[in-house]
Amino acid sequence: MTPIQIAIVGVGKIVRDQHLPAISKNADYRLIAAASRHGTVDGIDNFKSIEAMLEAVPAIDAVSLCMPPQYRYEAAHLALQAGKHVFLEKPPGATLSEVADLEALAAAKGVSLFASWHSRYAPAVEAAKAFLASTAIRNVKVIWKEDVRHWHPHQEWIWAAGGLGVFDPGINALSIVTHILPRPIFITSATLEFPENRDAPIAATIAFSDAGKLSVSAEFDWRQTGKQSWDIVAETDAGEMVLSEGGAKLAVDGKLVHEEPEQEYPMLYRRFAELIKAGKSDVDLAPLRHVADAFMLGRRKFVDVFYD
Amino acid sequence: MTPIQIAIVGVGKIVRDQHLPAISKNADYRLIAAASRHGTVDGIDNFKSIEAMLEAVPAIDAVSLCMPPQYRYEAAHLALQAGKHVFLEKPPGATLSEVADLEALAAAKGVSLFASWHSRYAPAVEAAKAFLASTAIRNVKVIWKEDVRHWHPHQEWIWAAGGLGVFDPGINALSIVTHILPRPIFITSATLEFPENRDAPIAATIAFSDAGKLSVSAEFDWRQTGKQSWDIVAETDAGEMVLSEGGAKLAVDGKLVHEEPEQEYPMLYRRFAELIKAGKSDVDLAPLRHVADAFMLGRRKFVDVFYD
Repeated sequence: MTPIQIAIVGVGKIVRDQHLPAISKNADYRLIAAASRHGTVDGIDNFKSIEAMLEAVPAIDAVSLCMPPQYRYEAAHLALQAGKHVFLEKPPGATLSEVADLEALAAAKGVSLFASWHSRYAPAVEAAKAFLASTAIRNVKVIWKEDVRHWHPHQEWIWAAGGLGVFDPGINALSIVTHILPRPIFITSATLEFPENRDAPIAATIAFSDAGKLSVSAEFDWRQTGKQSWDIVAETDAGEMVLSEGGAKLAVDGKLVHEEPEQEYPMLYRRFAELIKAGKSDVDLAPLRHVADAFMLGRRKFVDVFYD
Repeated sequence: MTPIQIAIVGVGKIVRDQHLPAISKNADYRLIAAASRHGTVDGIDNFKSIEAMLEAVPAIDAVSLCMPPQYRYEAAHLALQAGKHVFLEKPPGATLSEVADLEALAAAKGVSLFASWHSRYAPAVEAAKAFLASTAIRNVKVIWKEDVRHWHPHQEWIWAAGGLGVFDPGINALSIVTHILPRPIFITSATLEFPENRDAPIAATIAFSDAGKLSVSAEFDWRQTGKQSWDIVAETDAGEMVLSEGGAKLAVDGKLVHEEPEQEYPMLYRRFAELIKAGKSDVDLAPLRHVADAFMLGRRKFVDVFYD
């Protein structure tokens, strides 16, 4: 098969760290162009805007959109309207409604839209899902605590209204939880902690339930120094399951049962190629819907000012 | 046809004012039971809980759920699980995710779920939709300003986290706007004003757009004394359209073109009976999705304390 001629929009850290290596190692793709206000990619045509790129390079089959979510709708709409397949970095947009609109447009144009959730492709996630399906779950605790100064230094957009704050990493946890639990969950209460000088939360405590009254709790915190935690702990009839390091390791009753090298972005690009070949889209809004639900239902609490 | 044996859950003001008269005038229904912590309905069996009611009256075919949204999921789940058709007052739930879960359960059980939006059945709404479809729209302004002390005196639940605040009436406007505009809209920015002593907003200013870059703005305010406003104004190539009084009247360039008696709840119950007969559900989450998007994307601003 002829490789998929792909272009990148929004050349930043995640593109250099993850997208470019994943694309270059996958024979299904040939990277032919990039568009970005500031960044460029060596060895291909670079443009300042997606409009200019789509105009100049009609051979593009697919685009990966990696700019901040606040700017993603317009680019996605242009690309879909031009008949290109679209890969959306997480979160897929600034609102649920705009992503629903894009999904309808992709269907109308007969192209593939992929709302990617990279953490779902962490090495031990499928093993955790299989383990939970094999037993009865008593309760689930999600602990996602990291140091924002280390992971997002001076990223102002993440603190703006719509930037999601601590839900930017938290949505990774939600993308895993919604994938591995046997039934859909929904939020019953939440508290969001906003620094007095910021428009996005620095921490959140969330309680979920499901049709079987399972108790699922989540603690997201961006003020964690020292050891970082990206863990999902489930008490089950078959022991305590710990999915740790963001889905990299699975242990049951303290015994490591699954650990493999991390392959998230290579797997995302494999999935995107499969979707294009099958003529399908994959737009699961559940993780972003939980974030919107948390903002709608949650109580706001004000905490100390935050400076980088 | 045998009438649909219907029961009401959550007997409060809206039930006495709207649901009971609409049901009693519709030959498709026979009201046979009610469940409510405090209220009762004369002449039928009354229960303290939906569990007790479903247990005692197996003949119930359908239930109308009219309690505050924070308590609606559990009742809806019980009723659907018992094979009953379910009518949900607006908003259909406290979160988007729980309503999505109920929709899947209704489909699995082969019963009808109706997420009702009464304002969509206001007399002039269909005429407004037809007018907008016949011309080019330049911009749309939604002005929904009312006196909360008059319309919701001492309703504490409406001010609690999850009670939605000014979005409780605002969602009526959104249910109309999403119905009459030709294309889906999405929020691009929002400001939510919270009284310092309350967990829900007292006012909101929202900007929307759509795939055609239409500008739609909404102003919701609960501090309006004197004249109340529930208006949707569209500048179009065929003149200025004003849909006023919550959808009751339609005027173009100042000339009244449509006015009929209000029939919202009778039409909702007609629709629910049609859905049951057709074996279908009608769960349009767009209005609630916009509210969740506004909370997620919106900037929070603090304003004067509010006391009833």
